[in-house]
Amino acid sequence: MPKDVITTRAKDYNQWYLDIVQHADLAVSAEVVRGCIVFRPTGWAIWEMMQRGLDERIKATGHENVYFPLLIPESFLRREQEHVEGFAPEVAVVTHAGGEALTEPYVIRPTSETIIGYFFAKWIRSYRDLPLLYNQWANVMRWELRTRPFLRTAEFQWQEGHTAHATQDDAERETLMILHDVYADFVENVMAMPVIRGLKTEKEKFAGALRSYCIEAMMQDGRALQAGTSHNLGQNFARAFDITYTDQGNTVQHCWTTSWGISTRLIGALIMTHSDDEGLVLPPRLAPTQVIIVPIYKNDEEQSKVMAVVERLSAELKGKLRFKVDSRDNLTPGFKFNEWELKGVPLRIEIGPKDVEKGSVALARRDMPGKAGKQFVNQEGLVERLSTLLEEIQANLYTKALAFRTERTRHVHTYEELQSQVEIGFARAYWAGSRADEQRLQDELKATIRCIPLDQPEQPGRCVLTGKETTQLVIFARAY
Amino acid sequence: MPKDVITTRAKDYNQWYLDIVQHADLAVSAEVVRGCIVFRPTGWAIWEMMQRGLDERIKATGHENVYFPLLIPESFLRREQEHVEGFAPEVAVVTHAGGEALTEPYVIRPTSETIIGYFFAKWIRSYRDLPLLYNQWANVMRWELRTRPFLRTAEFQWQEGHTAHATQDDAERETLMILHDVYADFVENVMAMPVIRGLKTEKEKFAGALRSYCIEAMMQDGRALQAGTSHNLGQNFARAFDITYTDQGNTVQHCWTTSWGISTRLIGALIMTHSDDEGLVLPPRLAPTQVIIVPIYKNDEEQSKVMAVVERLSAELKGKLRFKVDSRDNLTPGFKFNEWELKGVPLRIEIGPKDVEKGSVALARRDMPGKAGKQFVNQEGLVERLSTLLEEIQANLYTKALAFRTERTRHVHTYEELQSQVEIGFARAYWAGSRADEQRLQDELKATIRCIPLDQPEQPGRCVLTGKETTQLVIFARAY
Repeated sequence: MPKDVITTRAKDYNQWYLDIVQHADLAVSAEVVRGCIVFRPTGWAIWEMMQRGLDERIKATGHENVYFPLLIPESFLRREQEHVEGFAPEVAVVTHAGGEALTEPYVIRPTSETIIGYFFAKWIRSYRDLPLLYNQWANVMRWELRTRPFLRTAEFQWQEGHTAHATQDDAERETLMILHDVYADFVENVMAMPVIRGLKTEKEKFAGALRSYCIEAMMQDGRALQAGTSHNLGQNFARAFDITYTDQGNTVQHCWTTSWGISTRLIGALIMTHSDDEGLVLPPRLAPTQVIIVPIYKNDEEQSKVMAVVERLSAELKGKLRFKVDSRDNLTPGFKFNEWELKGVPLRIEIGPKDVEKGSVALARRDMPGKAGKQFVNQEGLVERLSTLLEEIQANLYTKALAFRTERTRHVHTYEELQSQVEIGFARAYWAGSRADEQRLQDELKATIRCIPLDQPEQPGRCVLTGKETTQLVIFARAY
Repeated sequence: MPKDVITTRAKDYNQWYLDIVQHADLAVSAEVVRGCIVFRPTGWAIWEMMQRGLDERIKATGHENVYFPLLIPESFLRREQEHVEGFAPEVAVVTHAGGEALTEPYVIRPTSETIIGYFFAKWIRSYRDLPLLYNQWANVMRWELRTRPFLRTAEFQWQEGHTAHATQDDAERETLMILHDVYADFVENVMAMPVIRGLKTEKEKFAGALRSYCIEAMMQDGRALQAGTSHNLGQNFARAFDITYTDQGNTVQHCWTTSWGISTRLIGALIMTHSDDEGLVLPPRLAPTQVIIVPIYKNDEEQSKVMAVVERLSAELKGKLRFKVDSRDNLTPGFKFNEWELKGVPLRIEIGPKDVEKGSVALARRDMPGKAGKQFVNQEGLVERLSTLLEEIQANLYTKALAFRTERTRHVHTYEELQSQVEIGFARAYWAGSRADEQRLQDELKATIRCIPLDQPEQPGRCVLTGKETTQLVIFARAY
């Protein structure tokens, strides 16, 4: 891979992002299908790692996977008032099938609350059927006007959890458990992305929810990205779809439902959290390939010596780390180094004739480009050394991202401070404004209230806009 | 679960199938979405096991996963003549999106050769780019007139492999490697289903293929089910989409492509291969739950003694076997036994107060209902005993299915023999008829040539219809 195929962040942040998507083999535009992408092997492998980590956590917390149809009768979307307003404008509609016009059109699911609500109503009879804890992995479609690879595409992949509970408390506990134990845990500990856990304002919540919780991450341009959402739907969908149960006292009650999702936009978040001007940077726990081994030789004799060591080390690493050997013989080592750096592989092992003689290998850390991340280590005990290093890299990426966010977050007390802070990052501010005020700030500053963090201050303060005393602190930012 | 919720096979084979689908918690009709199903937890868990086993094999043979869009421009389907004839009548069409009529409609992919062909043409430049070995896991849609859960549904899940090669030989090798090393290996060794590997006739091959290979299994009513297909597409799609490469001699050539798929209809095949009148029977290597533990007690004292043993044994089994403990306290042991039999769990462990005293447990094998499959074994060394038993069950299911197929397969020499044999199973016959003859037999006998087995006889024989001498032997059967 030639050097400098990636535009620098300083020069053009958006182009930098698109260059990484393309050159790290993550995705390309679907061209002939509006607003869609084709996932290339590295992009899909990252999504598979995300699926694996999330699926484990979703199952470990008692949920089962199910699968509902891609198509939803158009009339279903209209049953819940806020929901139809939120989604009707952006659905794709199937009007013909099997050579005939359909009597009732279907929409391609933009999300599945409605069709799942229809079945929950059939499946739930008594309190013994609750809680009902389901999840599905699915593709969904929203005909967005402006799209960007991973961050906003017409078709995208996600998981959507759907649960039903007997009481509001149970639903609320589920919503928060997912936020903390599934989403924040995965994103922070596997993706090495620090997040702020918070509640959406009424204006920003999911169409049809009682309360929406989210995790918000900061990208390298200081903008926010919503990395996951967990909604307490209250009894809104239960009323719209008549999801009821008979309680222990033999009274029929409406259920309380939740829904929660994380999507392929996480790949976009991943790119914009850790990557640099050399390309993608992957945290080791998420990286499909954690270690790349590049043999170096100039002639057949060197090759056979080097490859003997490569094969011995490969046998040791097998089953313990995710690694690959790049033995392509039509490319120079330098070209390979650049390519694997671009693709974000956390650790590179170089083995040349001198290393064979010395019984060592050269290691290069992706998170520390240049000399700083280079070291020579013994072939002896390599597995343990690599495992330790990978965990160091994992921790380092998190620490760096957290430091960046801290540096770009400021408490603001005035409109002017707010205005300038959202240019570069997150603004923490007391807030007692109305929904109209919130809209006005959005129009003026191109920034929104990302969330009301769950960690709230004990002391009251004055609203950044109205000056009213309040205990509610919020985060303002521009967002993806 | 009450006994006798399943119609017996003898009484009504089709209803037996539908009863198992429903009561073993596999799927329900989607009702409001024509021809679709909702996968219930057990059904989806089985599909996840299938995905895991196939995905491992697909990756181990050098393929990478990618993902192409759900929607395909309608015009793409028309580029390959046989392909359009095969699929155009059964597509679902998106004509509106984002509140507007689309200038060109999209179809929901019935299969992805066309859109993938479009991208292969862009991605492949030189012989160095070949072979290109991709696979995707996806939902597809075919608006079938008559549907049946798993076997034929409008939307279904599958994997579709798509590869491009420099030569016809390479493409042919790939097609057969997938048939043997991925499909037959998985279906026989994990699903315990014996299959016949063969070539489809010209009449039965995939729309657009040069040659279609398949694996065919026999169901318990003697009918055939195509369990997987692997197509050598020749240069048909390469010409339609201009997929070319520059060879070592600097000449531009058309590529040779393949495609191959296995779908959720395998779940239908699984049901109809092993299940009995008590419900689903799952081969241990595929079973999401291999062992169910049912504690038995009458009072609190017994409960605490029994549960202490259950917890100790659970700790031993953890990470070694896939098991569950059924500790629901509002159901009788007998009800639980029936439910887990119905759901096909290969082994049941019963632990009561007497077992606690004796240091033993009672085991019941799902593949041998009644006394024959019951035994008492020591708690000591239980993990090893269970592992051995599970492998015995796995082998037994394969052997039984193979014996059944052998019993229901006959070599036929005359039209009359053929006619009566397809009523009960597979007919092996020499065949030298024309495509018109093949159609005529299909109309008359409601049976088709399932395949030309790869294992062909050395001696010639006389065609069952025309009496012409030929070395070609085929399998006739009625099919799902």
